[in-house]
Amino acid sequence: MRIKLSKWKVISFGLGPIGKSIAKLALERGSQIEIVGAVDSDPELVGEDLGRVLGLDTRTGIRVQRAGKGLYDEADIVLHATTSFLSTVKAQLLEFCDHGIDVVSTCEELAYPWFNHAEAARELDSAAKERNVSLLGAGVNPGFVLDVLAITLSGVCQSVSEIHGSRILDAAKRRLPFQMKVGLGMSVDSFEENVRTGKFGHIGLPESLALTCASMGVDVDKIDQKISPKLATSPVKTEHFGVIEEGMVIGLVQDGTAIARGRRLATYHIEMYAGAVDPYDEIEFVGVPNISLRIQDGTPGDIATAAIIVNSIPRVIEARAGLLTVKDLRPASSVFA
Amino acid sequence: MRIKLSKWKVISFGLGPIGKSIAKLALERGSQIEIVGAVDSDPELVGEDLGRVLGLDTRTGIRVQRAGKGLYDEADIVLHATTSFLSTVKAQLLEFCDHGIDVVSTCEELAYPWFNHAEAARELDSAAKERNVSLLGAGVNPGFVLDVLAITLSGVCQSVSEIHGSRILDAAKRRLPFQMKVGLGMSVDSFEENVRTGKFGHIGLPESLALTCASMGVDVDKIDQKISPKLATSPVKTEHFGVIEEGMVIGLVQDGTAIARGRRLATYHIEMYAGAVDPYDEIEFVGVPNISLRIQDGTPGDIATAAIIVNSIPRVIEARAGLLTVKDLRPASSVFA
Repeated sequence: MRIKLSKWKVISFGLGPIGKSIAKLALERGSQIEIVGAVDSDPELVGEDLGRVLGLDTRTGIRVQRAGKGLYDEADIVLHATTSFLSTVKAQLLEFCDHGIDVVSTCEELAYPWFNHAEAARELDSAAKERNVSLLGAGVNPGFVLDVLAITLSGVCQSVSEIHGSRILDAAKRRLPFQMKVGLGMSVDSFEENVRTGKFGHIGLPESLALTCASMGVDVDKIDQKISPKLATSPVKTEHFGVIEEGMVIGLVQDGTAIARGRRLATYHIEMYAGAVDPYDEIEFVGVPNISLRIQDGTPGDIATAAIIVNSIPRVIEARAGLLTVKDLRPASSVFA
Repeated sequence: MRIKLSKWKVISFGLGPIGKSIAKLALERGSQIEIVGAVDSDPELVGEDLGRVLGLDTRTGIRVQRAGKGLYDEADIVLHATTSFLSTVKAQLLEFCDHGIDVVSTCEELAYPWFNHAEAARELDSAAKERNVSLLGAGVNPGFVLDVLAITLSGVCQSVSEIHGSRILDAAKRRLPFQMKVGLGMSVDSFEENVRTGKFGHIGLPESLALTCASMGVDVDKIDQKISPKLATSPVKTEHFGVIEEGMVIGLVQDGTAIARGRRLATYHIEMYAGAVDPYDEIEFVGVPNISLRIQDGTPGDIATAAIIVNSIPRVIEARAGLLTVKDLRPASSVFA
């Protein structure tokens, strides 16, 4: 936690498709935000001007570099967008803590690491508190649709028996790495093999379930998760994978169930496939009262993730030290154009 | 702000229909909440056991009393539900501040008093800060549908051009005082006369508009508001007003527009009338991306208001001192049954 004196000074860490969107939006918010550093490990990007990397006509004067000393000295916060897995990013996050700099990260497993990665969560929480750093995992999913939005809606309930959430999206409209992790163009065998690695499919469903239940005071005992392939029933034309023939994988169906107190508390259902017919996000509370909320056409993942990361900057900077989750922060709001 | 050591000790202040719902819910949450006092000015209630006033079979051991000394000594927070108007409740709120006790109130004008009642807002904020008190106006509308939910949804937007909100509800399903303030059974002349008092119709629409814009960093310059009668086009049967004949008022249509930076930033539209055909709540952001959210059948006002007040207890107790609004607090979540 630091007090804002002028613009928020940020470091763009990770310049894949999402990292680039975040950096672009940060540049657009130039009256509030100043990018003071850009980091990526790709040798093709290192040394380039950030403007060029982002495909802009103008130079920014910021050269992409590998992480290193001196980088963090004048920054308030790192906008971190590298991978989905805590095991991969933990060392980076601990390094940010060492430098006493706040972090908001797209790492899906960081959205609520207390369930599946409790030891790493404790380690990060201690390191963050020791150095007065606020550390947040955020994004659309996990982070928003099945998390903040669900938690916020729960506020109108006198009591809740069960929570149901659904997110149906058209994977054809998403970035290439996303399409790869939901299996576009794979054979069923290859899909199943990937599922067995535990690093495939939508990452973050258990995190969303555990986070939402935790916001209502319950540590879940168990989360069941199932990932199934969605198959083309007729040829599907795609940008990156050509025509996906009938019987091949066009995406996935993923179901998660949170169990505690000897019963089912929450079920989340996700379908991510090319050509999804009726995309939407929906949250339903069974309780007093029954209530449900729907975002027709769904929350557009890649645009919205960049928005959430950038909109979270002041929330993270003002927050207490420690490993935070979105339930700990007041809503990250947007700005008028 | 106080630290919770055991149960939250609350005072039920105001025992009209909403105050009673709040007290009932607080009793149902007996493992977390203890009611230590109940206040109402109605001579018929004073001296009665709270359980009897709430229509319960059991006694609570709490007798309804008029406000007075000693009442606040052991309480953490006042659950305040008396009137919609800040001019009426300000003295009560200042008295709570004097006693150093936190407050969450249903008073509509308290949801964001900084626009229409800036002087009173400053006075309350100073008094609250001086005595380390957290003071919040909350509820469904204003407070939730066109406020917290809108602010939360804005988080997925990179930028916002304009906000539109609608709330259509069936006034026949609401409590009698609500039905009176939206004009059920009135003649058009009587409705128009009531509108001219400035104390009629849905209270809180300017507050919702100003609050949502403030969350996005803009103090609005001007809010235009229009209240029109909704007339019966055929006889409408109601519980409290008998049959409302054709041409008589069955409710209202209310529109508010927030203007700043020389343009329209937000429009909120409300219809509250007996027999509303397709009730819903909707928030729409025009921006990057365009996004809209809908609660089909709408948020049930009276049940949800009690829920929000009770769910806000820990948020208010943990919050910093001062006059707060819902944008300042992390989401008030529910509990599992």
